[in-house]
Amino acid sequence: MYDWFDSYEERDWQTTTEGTVRLALLGLGWWTIDEALPAIGNTDRCEATTLVSSSAEKAERLADENGVDNGISYDEFHDGAAADAYDAVYLGTPNAYHLEYVETAADLGKAVLCEKPMESTVERAEAMVDACERADVPLMIAYRMHTDPTVRRARDLLDEGFIGEPVSVYGNNSQPLLEMIPDHDQWRLDPDVSGYGTSVTDLGIYSVNTARFLLDRDPVAVQSRMSSHHEAFADVPDERSGSLLALEGDVKMVTTTSQNAHRDTQLKLTGTEGQIDLRPAFHGTCTMHLSRGDLSATIENAAVDSQREMREEFDYFADRVLTGGDIVPDGRHGLQDMRIIQALHEAADTGDVVTLE
Amino acid sequence: MYDWFDSYEERDWQTTTEGTVRLALLGLGWWTIDEALPAIGNTDRCEATTLVSSSAEKAERLADENGVDNGISYDEFHDGAAADAYDAVYLGTPNAYHLEYVETAADLGKAVLCEKPMESTVERAEAMVDACERADVPLMIAYRMHTDPTVRRARDLLDEGFIGEPVSVYGNNSQPLLEMIPDHDQWRLDPDVSGYGTSVTDLGIYSVNTARFLLDRDPVAVQSRMSSHHEAFADVPDERSGSLLALEGDVKMVTTTSQNAHRDTQLKLTGTEGQIDLRPAFHGTCTMHLSRGDLSATIENAAVDSQREMREEFDYFADRVLTGGDIVPDGRHGLQDMRIIQALHEAADTGDVVTLE
Repeated sequence: MYDWFDSYEERDWQTTTEGTVRLALLGLGWWTIDEALPAIGNTDRCEATTLVSSSAEKAERLADENGVDNGISYDEFHDGAAADAYDAVYLGTPNAYHLEYVETAADLGKAVLCEKPMESTVERAEAMVDACERADVPLMIAYRMHTDPTVRRARDLLDEGFIGEPVSVYGNNSQPLLEMIPDHDQWRLDPDVSGYGTSVTDLGIYSVNTARFLLDRDPVAVQSRMSSHHEAFADVPDERSGSLLALEGDVKMVTTTSQNAHRDTQLKLTGTEGQIDLRPAFHGTCTMHLSRGDLSATIENAAVDSQREMREEFDYFADRVLTGGDIVPDGRHGLQDMRIIQALHEAADTGDVVTLE
Repeated sequence: MYDWFDSYEERDWQTTTEGTVRLALLGLGWWTIDEALPAIGNTDRCEATTLVSSSAEKAERLADENGVDNGISYDEFHDGAAADAYDAVYLGTPNAYHLEYVETAADLGKAVLCEKPMESTVERAEAMVDACERADVPLMIAYRMHTDPTVRRARDLLDEGFIGEPVSVYGNNSQPLLEMIPDHDQWRLDPDVSGYGTSVTDLGIYSVNTARFLLDRDPVAVQSRMSSHHEAFADVPDERSGSLLALEGDVKMVTTTSQNAHRDTQLKLTGTEGQIDLRPAFHGTCTMHLSRGDLSATIENAAVDSQREMREEFDYFADRVLTGGDIVPDGRHGLQDMRIIQALHEAADTGDVVTLE
């Protein structure tokens, strides 16, 4: 237990302690400026050298304000401006605007760290994977739960058989989007930009992807039900959703999501012998509740918040870019999530069981 | 808050403080002897006067040991033996053995408190309701969560709008049945006796019924997936299950159950404004976690255990028998659970959405 405490935050994924990856950041919303940029400032292996936005003026202003060397427009980015100043790009734009920038980054030979979900549709995600594979540039999807220390320790425990044979998984991710961003016309409510909908793509993906990572099992069949009620959600099918997924080995996974509900995250894995309950689970607040037999324990990590989660994620990305090592959440990993999201929407539309390969 | 604490356990359902209901108890397993009988001893309005078992010898011995007046066999019960000594019967027999005793009780003009699920099939449950309605005897199904003080306070809060509009419900009920009762041939694993299966009828019913009671909304459409893995579960389809239910108003409910998993119970109701999380939820350990806006609170009630839950349930039953008042978990209420359980099994068999009226 002593050792376990002292090695809790160990970077068991780390393979180098040398070098720096210089980043261009695309999409300068609050997430990139207020979360990603400070997180990058705290990394060991990353440096933000270039900001890219719709106007050169905005990009230059934000670069000045944040002590970043270059500020350029998307058009200038496509033309290869400042390309000598960065080794990789981070994509924080709305979902449907990922592909075009990744294609340019691949043409420029730059590594890519792309926010999740990786694009708006399976087809566009496939095109992204193709572009990066053709150009032989690394592509990582920004699943920051993969490098959250608590998630990694949970994964170790699962690998060691702490819960016995996995039986069921429950995931919820809900938030009051209109209180967070009081705009009925925001891109997350426009399916042309967000993808198939809003709650499953933006929130449900956390439960599904983290369960995939923790258990190393993918969904093989899904059922789902979605509905929208509030007028701001008129264009998307899933103001709320409930889903039933069979993971490999017939582990029963159930999930709920909503962009119009009280904020709550939980991911609970129950097995024949024990349970690991991440509660809260996502958004930098991961607390682990363990039980096995008559014993239970709660592990709280006061050090982690969303910026620290991102710091770990960026340093993992840099580690792989610098060494050429395998990336776990690579483009094909992210593409499988896109197929799952599409299957969930098809299942909600038809009422049928939709199978996945 | 002062008032709320001091009235937490108030019997808001109570309508009389006079009279006694004399009970015959049928089915003398550990539940009846170790849980129900002591609980009845602590009630205000109930008295156990008669024990009924397969042999008169066993019934007489247990009556002697427990200070109960009469011990009779099932055959003697059917013949009306000791019928002057009791006003009502409590049925703790295996599920498929409820109907025949209820029919006799109805013929004898006795009120009935029947364990859940009320029978093994919808058809037999319908016959039970018919028998009691024809004889005009009260029939209550033993949903003891209805009189658990924490569940009742949760219901008050829901009625007052504490969580806003309900969005989603999650329920889990799992236990290691073979550790609790190490017998591969026990009746809970025999679908002819237990009903459609084992985990949904015996465990899932807690999540479904308590959600129905708390929200006053019934499932209108269900999807489900079930599987059995361990050899002891070869005859039942649902060693484990996962289900997706649409409650009235398109509230998304997801549930998991397993008779072969780590013990865990949770019932979480999330709304647009807040959340009520019963964790643990069932089996006499109900703890309420409330959150709304930025505030959260945990309400633990050290006084309640399964016997105390049963005491409340028995006194509620006696209150209604003595006054002729309406019973909330009556035969038709229990019959709807049987239809839901049947629908869940049909949904698991077919993969289809099964609708309920």
